[in-house]
Amino acid sequence: MADTTLTSGQILEAAEDVLRRFGPAKTTVVDVARVLGVSHGSVYRHFPSKAALREAVAERWLERAHAPLPALTSADLPASQRLRAWLTTLAAEKRTKALEDPELFATYMVLVRESSAVVAEHVEDLIRQIALIIEDGVADGDFAATDVHRTARAVLQATARWHDPVHAPDWVEPGVADALEAVCDLVLDGLRVRN
Amino acid sequence: MADTTLTSGQILEAAEDVLRRFGPAKTTVVDVARVLGVSHGSVYRHFPSKAALREAVAERWLERAHAPLPALTSADLPASQRLRAWLTTLAAEKRTKALEDPELFATYMVLVRESSAVVAEHVEDLIRQIALIIEDGVADGDFAATDVHRTARAVLQATARWHDPVHAPDWVEPGVADALEAVCDLVLDGLRVRN
Repeated sequence: MADTTLTSGQILEAAEDVLRRFGPAKTTVVDVARVLGVSHGSVYRHFPSKAALREAVAERWLERAHAPLPALTSADLPASQRLRAWLTTLAAEKRTKALEDPELFATYMVLVRESSAVVAEHVEDLIRQIALIIEDGVADGDFAATDVHRTARAVLQATARWHDPVHAPDWVEPGVADALEAVCDLVLDGLRVRN
Repeated sequence: MADTTLTSGQILEAAEDVLRRFGPAKTTVVDVARVLGVSHGSVYRHFPSKAALREAVAERWLERAHAPLPALTSADLPASQRLRAWLTTLAAEKRTKALEDPELFATYMVLVRESSAVVAEHVEDLIRQIALIIEDGVADGDFAATDVHRTARAVLQATARWHDPVHAPDWVEPGVADALEAVCDLVLDGLRVRN
């Protein structure tokens, strides 16, 4: 491959393949360059370090897992139904990604512990999306919330068991979907305005 | 030490010491017997396998971490204050145990993934304690709950981030206590009866 046409996207695709095969501990920039048939200097021009390359891989994985969520945030549904659909979709996406591509998911879990800035930014983005739904619910007179950001963070953290990758071993247990339903019931009752 | 006076408690003390020093992967029944100055057969008479010994260690650790909870379950406080105190105490106990004895906590985390029956039983016990508090709240007209066990499990799982050992790395982050407070607010609002 000619170095001049090499894109960041091509490097990330190759990096995912290499991580899938060798795992995060053994993957080097040189391996990724070899798969692409370029010098490692060409890869370093896009990603200045192995850590930067890993962070970009983790970020891309998270973006794919969270892709269906922004559309749900503004879906034409009452806020309580929208929030339940949003939380259920987040859980389903994470579970599917963990089961359909276990090697890359294992890699991602290592990256998560390493790339805390990337993960923290994504968590903040999820909290903002939940906050938008809560604000709509408050505007419609369905929800009560004095500190929307604090409440949105509480909603995300109360459902950590279904989206935080440290809980992935629990996602294949029977009853995991019903248990999320029970927490959604509790959380949505907690948000509902009192008459 | 004379084999005839050897108790299970002495074996478990010694097993904790050995686990603390060598970690779960390298600890054997022979090591534990050596520390006690007895034959490994003497240990096997109390614990028929290395796995049984590990399970007993995990169980003892969990019992210590959960020790203050049953008294809180029947404390003379309104159910909502009692449940908040119970959840806060569970989080504080787990956090203290993780910080004050990190070697044994790391061992415990390995044991948790191995000894799922022991952990499942303790989780059920915690759910029963929460259910007792919720039942009192319903009897007092403060809480509404149609399926108390399901709701109690939801309360425990909604606060997993503060008691499940997989989240231990988060317990030293700033704001972790306030974040639990926010989830307690949400959960208690969810339980409260509607007038």
